[in-house]
Parts: sequence; C-alpha cells; structure tokens
Amino acid sequence: MGDLIKVLHEGLPVEAVLTDPDVTRAYANDMASFCASGTPAVVVLPRTVEQVRHVMRTATALRVPVVPQGARTGLSGAANASDGCIVLSLVKMDRIIEINPVDRVAVVEPGVVNAVLSRAVAEQGLYYPPDPSSWEQCTIGGNIGTASGGLCCVKYGVTAEYVLGLDVVLADGRLMSTGRRTAKGVAGYDLTRLFVGSEGSLGIVVRAVLALKPAPPEQRVLAAEFPSAAAACAAVCEIMARGHAPSLLELMDRTSVRAVNAMTHMGLPDTTEALLLAAFDTPDPAPDLAAVAELCTAAGATEVVPADSAAESDLLLQARRMTLTALETLRPATMIDDVCVPRSRLADMLDGTAAIAEKYALTIGVCAHAGDGNTHPVVCFDPADPDEARRARESFDEIMALGLELGGTITGEHGVGVLKKEWLARELGPVGLEMQRGIKAVFDPLGLLNPGKVLDLCPPGG
Amino acid sequence: MGDLIKVLHEGLPVEAVLTDPDVTRAYANDMASFCASGTPAVVVLPRTVEQVRHVMRTATALRVPVVPQGARTGLSGAANASDGCIVLSLVKMDRIIEINPVDRVAVVEPGVVNAVLSRAVAEQGLYYPPDPSSWEQCTIGGNIGTASGGLCCVKYGVTAEYVLGLDVVLADGRLMSTGRRTAKGVAGYDLTRLFVGSEGSLGIVVRAVLALKPAPPEQRVLAAEFPSAAAACAAVCEIMARGHAPSLLELMDRTSVRAVNAMTHMGLPDTTEALLLAAFDTPDPAPDLAAVAELCTAAGATEVVPADSAAESDLLLQARRMTLTALETLRPATMIDDVCVPRSRLADMLDGTAAIAEKYALTIGVCAHAGDGNTHPVVCFDPADPDEARRARESFDEIMALGLELGGTITGEHGVGVLKKEWLARELGPVGLEMQRGIKAVFDPLGLLNPGKVLDLCPPGG
Repeated sequence: MGDLIKVLHEGLPVEAVLTDPDVTRAYANDMASFCASGTPAVVVLPRTVEQVRHVMRTATALRVPVVPQGARTGLSGAANASDGCIVLSLVKMDRIIEINPVDRVAVVEPGVVNAVLSRAVAEQGLYYPPDPSSWEQCTIGGNIGTASGGLCCVKYGVTAEYVLGLDVVLADGRLMSTGRRTAKGVAGYDLTRLFVGSEGSLGIVVRAVLALKPAPPEQRVLAAEFPSAAAACAAVCEIMARGHAPSLLELMDRTSVRAVNAMTHMGLPDTTEALLLAAFDTPDPAPDLAAVAELCTAAGATEVVPADSAAESDLLLQARRMTLTALETLRPATMIDDVCVPRSRLADMLDGTAAIAEKYALTIGVCAHAGDGNTHPVVCFDPADPDEARRARESFDEIMALGLELGGTITGEHGVGVLKKEWLARELGPVGLEMQRGIKAVFDPLGLLNPGKVLDLCPPGG
Repeated sequence: MGDLIKVLHEGLPVEAVLTDPDVTRAYANDMASFCASGTPAVVVLPRTVEQVRHVMRTATALRVPVVPQGARTGLSGAANASDGCIVLSLVKMDRIIEINPVDRVAVVEPGVVNAVLSRAVAEQGLYYPPDPSSWEQCTIGGNIGTASGGLCCVKYGVTAEYVLGLDVVLADGRLMSTGRRTAKGVAGYDLTRLFVGSEGSLGIVVRAVLALKPAPPEQRVLAAEFPSAAAACAAVCEIMARGHAPSLLELMDRTSVRAVNAMTHMGLPDTTEALLLAAFDTPDPAPDLAAVAELCTAAGATEVVPADSAAESDLLLQARRMTLTALETLRPATMIDDVCVPRSRLADMLDGTAAIAEKYALTIGVCAHAGDGNTHPVVCFDPADPDEARRARESFDEIMALGLELGGTITGEHGVGVLKKEWLARELGPVGLEMQRGIKAVFDPLGLLNPGKVLDLCPPGG
C-alpha cells in the first residue's frame, strides 16, 4: 500500500493522487442499487495519456486492481470500487481536441461531459446524437464504456455507432490505437467496437474519434393518450411498420405520468393508461405527424395533441426526461431495469411487467424508448423493509427473465456491471460466455481491469 | 485424405461433397489479382447448420484447414483455397427465413444473394442498404465476412451497421449465438461486430439477423463536370460540411469516364477531368439538389446537369456501376485498390494517385465513393509483361502507403485477405496486431479457419 502510493507519485502530480478516506469514499459507487462496493486504496485523477500509462504500469507491476470511472452516473455498478483498488477517474481528461465539420468527426478525451460536447458541435452546425438521461453529467468515456443510448436512438442509434476509433491504454500500460478517423474501414478485427460497452474491463480509453451528423431541424412532438399500454404499443408497431422514422418514440405508463404530475404540476393527462410521445425532426414534419396522429387514433388513442410550438415540444420532452426522478420520489429507493425486446413484443413486455408488479405488490413505473422496444421498469421500494427489498430484487429479476423469454436482452443500454452479471451468463449461454472470457484474458491476462464486472474470469466453481 | 472424404460423407449427402479436381478447381479463387491459391482436397456444399457443424468437427478432428466461401466475388483473395483444404461453400444455404416489417429485421442464411434479399424486402416496403457492386452475385455471408460497402454508404453506412446478431459455428463445431434481434443491446462484449469483416477466420456464419430500413423514395441524381479532381473534391467537402445528406456522392476520373464511354457509347462528357454524381432520396430532393448544384458551380464545375427523370438518374448510376468493368477492358488485367482517407484529404489522395500513375507509366483509373473518402484506384496492366506487372504491384502498394500517410486506411470495404496482409500489420502497429492475434487464437486455437488470411498466427520470424 505504502509502495503503491509512492510509485504512483513518481508519475503523477501530488494533487492527482487522493488517499484521504473521507475524500476517496465519494468515489466508491455509481448510481446502481443493490450493488456491493469496496474501499479504494487510492483515487487517481490523471490529466495525460502518459499519466494513465504510469498508473497502469504501476497496477500491473504491483498487481493492484483498477476501477476506471467517469461521472459515476451508471446504473449497473460497473464503476463501483473494490477493496484496495486504484480508482482511475478520467474526469480531468476533459479536452475536446478537434471538431471537424468536413470530416464530420470530433476527437475528444474521455472526461468530456456529453452535454459539453453536444453543445460544442452544435455551435458548428453538427450533432452528436447519443443523449442518455444523465447527459448533463455523464462523460463520453463513460458513454463508451456502457455503450449508452438515450431518447434519440430510434432514429440515430446508440453510442457504438458514433465511435470510429480509440486510443486505449492496455492493462500493462502499452498504448494501442484502434479503428480510424475515416468514414469507412475494415482493416482487421473490429477492436473499436469490442471496447464499446466493455465497461473498462479490457483497457482504458484515453481518446476517441467520434462521428458527427449534420444538425437536424428542431423536432416537433406529438402526444397521444391511450386507454391501455397494449393500445399504445399497437400504435408503436404500426408507426414503425408503415416506415415512419420518428426522431423519438417514447412511452410513459400511468404510474410515470402521475409521478411527474405530482412532482411538477405539469398538467399531464392524469387519467391516461399510457402516454405516447412521437417526434419528427425532418424539414417538414407535418405529413408524418398527421399520419402518426391518424395511426394513434386508429389504435384507440382517446386524445392526440400535437405540440403547437417548440416550447410545447420541449415541455413534453422535459416531462419524459423527468420520469426517473419523479418515480424516485414514490419510495425511498428504486431499481431501474433496462430490458429491450423486439418491438413486436413490447405489449407483452408491458403487460407482463404490470402482472409482476401486482404479484409482488410493488409500485413499478415504466417509461420506455418504445420505438426501440427498450423498457425501463422502475421498481420502487423501501430498502429498510427487508421483505419489500426482497420482493423488489425478485421482481427486478423476473422482469429480466420475461425479457429473455420474449426474445429480448437483459440490457438495452445500461450495461451489465455487477447488477446483471449472473443474468449475462444466462443470456449468452455457455459457449458465448467462454469466448467472452477468452477475449477478456487476451487484454487483461492478470485480471486487473475492473475485476468482477461484466463477467468473472473463471467459470462458476472453476 | 481418404479418411477426410469418408468422414465428411458420414454427415453430408453425396452431392454435397465434391472431389473431382475438374470441378473443385472452379472453387480455387475469388476475383483478386496477385493472390496465390492452392488446390482444395474437397469442396463441401452443406444445406443445414448441422452439416456445417459436421464439417467443422471433422476438420478439427483431422486437423484440416477450412476455407469458407460465398460467391467468390471478393477482391482481396480472402476466399482463395489453400492446398489440401476443405472449401466450405455456403451458397446452398440460401433461405430467407423471415422478414419482419414491425421489428424491421430479416433473418437469413449466409448464401442468400444480396440482390435477392434486397428485392424481397423491397416488396414489403423495406430497404436493405448495403449494395456492393457485385450485389447481383455476392452473398450476405460474403458481405458479412468482408464488411462490404457500396454506393449507399455515405448516407446508410456499411454492412456492419446492419448485422444485429449471428449464429456461428466455431472451429470445433460448437454453435454460438451472438447479438440480438432487438434494436438495442449491450449484453457483454460485441462478438457480432467482431465477426463482421473477419473473413471467415473466426468461425462460420450460418444465420444472420439483419436490420432493415423503411424504403426511401427513389433517388434523384445530379451530375457535375469539373476541370480538375481537386475542384471536384472541394465540392465534396463543401457539400458535406454544409450538412447535406446525399444518398450517393460518387466521383469518376477522366480515365473512368472515357472507359465507360468507349464501352457503352453513353455520351458522358469525355473531356471532363472529374465527374461528380450526387443523389438525394428525400421526399423533396429539389432544395438539396439546387444547393448542391450551386456549391458545385462555386467550386468550379463547368457544367451541372440534374437528371430530369428517374430513367436519366438510373443511366448515370449505371455508368458509375459499370466503371470497373469498363476499366478492365483497357488492359489484360487490373488490380483494384480500396484506400479510404478522411474526406478532407480526398484531393491529396487523387492527386497523389495521378502522380503515382505517371511515375510508373501506368493507366490508373479512379472511381471513388467520394462522400466517404473511399477511393478505388484501378491499376490496369498486362501480367504477361513482367516489368509492367512489377510496376503494377509497386504502384498498388504505393497507393496504400499514400493512404496511410494521409491518415487513412488500406481498406475501406474490400477487406484484407492475402492481398494486404503485410499492409495490415503496418496499419495496426505491433500492439494492435498482437491483440488481433490473441483474438484469433481464442476462436481458432488450432489455426484451421481460413489460415493465412487477414493475419498470420505467429509474428514474422516467430
């Protein structure tokens, strides 16, 4: 331990090495519930690639595990510290190195906050689509680690689709470049994509080349109220089957709508069973909005209200963005699921989740990136009540089981972390899991990078 | 050898095992020049996953290398047979299993021809964008193996972006599923993407879940003549920097235009130095076409001609699609490069290529997916003339060196195969190469899958 700190100091400035337990304690957790965390030996805050390399060389030399961190807004415990680890926080590496409108790329360090980058590229008429709910806090490095999504995905896809190339510091401190800054490229196996979503378990991303899009026109939103979740899902299926390309297609269930109303007094339709928000960002959204309004009505919508202005559109989006916060006010704690199912099974997923809530006598509010079939059931509970906490965890798991049964995945965009590690094995099956372990061993033979996250190096009992 | 055929017959019907050298000879090569190929011991044509598993189990048991093949339209020798290998042709596994407009996915076997799938999904109002020039012959499995591109990529991206999930038979015959059929998913490392572009060196793709888009309106094309390649490239940069999203942005140099004219008497502008084709497939392409016309004129275009009709648009696209064939008529043989550079360096790439043609006293025609910075310099030569053949190979390599120097990649969409194997090492660097070798060893520890393609298992001299 004394050795570790001493060697770290050899390549890091004094202020970049934190050892005071009162200070380091703040770096123990991300935002996931039910995920154990330990006490780090030290928190380091490098500002350069060379400093990161020094940290990794030190970790390898002394066999100390390393937990990389961004803004710790993750929801699966992937950034939780383990006992005696080095927490490697990348938040001080926050430079935007380049924004190039001709090549439509940005080159950034991992600690750049998503919203900071989004605003910087917008100033040049460009658009960096990935917009996780935490976009005002979360970092690009964290987004890459968890392959974050957001509201825009139904039209623009997830973080993975915007990462062209990476500079990565490997476990032993060597530097590797992956990918490219060109629009296309197929030189060798796609290591870039392998790192996206790897939750810091394969290497430390220290620089990223990101693809940008031209800034689209401001989106116009339409809201539709439905008498049942199934009717709203039927509308979603029709909208997508008819070839519309909404820039957003979101669903809030009754519990979500009421929670947002109670918190904000926004005057959302309190009696609705499901509120659907659809948006288009084309030069002329009117034809799409009219067609979608008709499809909603045909699917049973009791009310369809197009936002009359950009301000009204913004208000509706704000309501959606506030859902998680609003649901958090219902009980002392929440667990947020992230099950993504084929769009055609969305109604089954929502009805099944409602049945699970009833079975366990719990409040479970659901908001969903409905166009992607990506649901976020939020299990609300009191951790001080052991029985309720047990029911919360069981219902959370049962929701994942339902997702798999419907041909879906346990995680659409939040990642695996420690929260869903056992479930990952179930989704991948033994052969897939073995290959994933093999890949982990190629990059991290000593098992020092974020150990215990995503997957365990040894098979259970092995 | 007798053993091999006997064991193969145990799990394959008689007609699926070809051993007559007059027949198997036809399976020795893909369409690359300058790539050695050997004599296969046997060609197998399985129709089921179980038969593929039998082939791979046999190959592993008897330690026989396996070369997977689609339609052999590849341009880098990735499908070339090696001596004594099993050629595993997937062309008989050609079923479209499902097309689902609500989930916007297709599930296919690897032998489905690209054009067959494209037409089948079009009938349901859907669109499978990847459109390599060989789309009437090439298979989806081959497209996945080489991560194929095409004309559509500037707006719609490459094959990789449409592969959601795979069923893969591993080297030892085990079956593994990767990815998902949902719109999003981040469960574990992205093995799907790892297989895309791996040229059959990691496993045998036996089933793919592909993402589809809604069918766009028919595209309208505009043609612009430029007095220099640099002026055309300046127009390309402006078009992209101003935020236009063309569905196609192609460039043909003077040599290409003249070759097409000579072959087809199409009446293209023979005197042009560079012909630029831009297209838009939006509901109302007029504003974009007008703006692009203006940008072309400002960049020095001597003539800008919007196609007046769909038929005229088609004719221009045909000219572009015929370029390679037309250039092939100029000399007895051709080698086609595939260098992709950042868009902002496209002019340097074209001017540099012209200088290389002059230096080596060769005809090198260039067509380019200009919007992507992806150039295809076609080196025309006579292989019967040893000096000309040497100059051809040297100029081919010098073009790749130039691409790397400009921050580009040696292959935008054709892959590495055997043709660019040494160049891959140069692009990746030693650390990247070591990691790629590690991944290869995880999936193919015995080195039986398409050996000698993409990369060699051992370091040079190792």
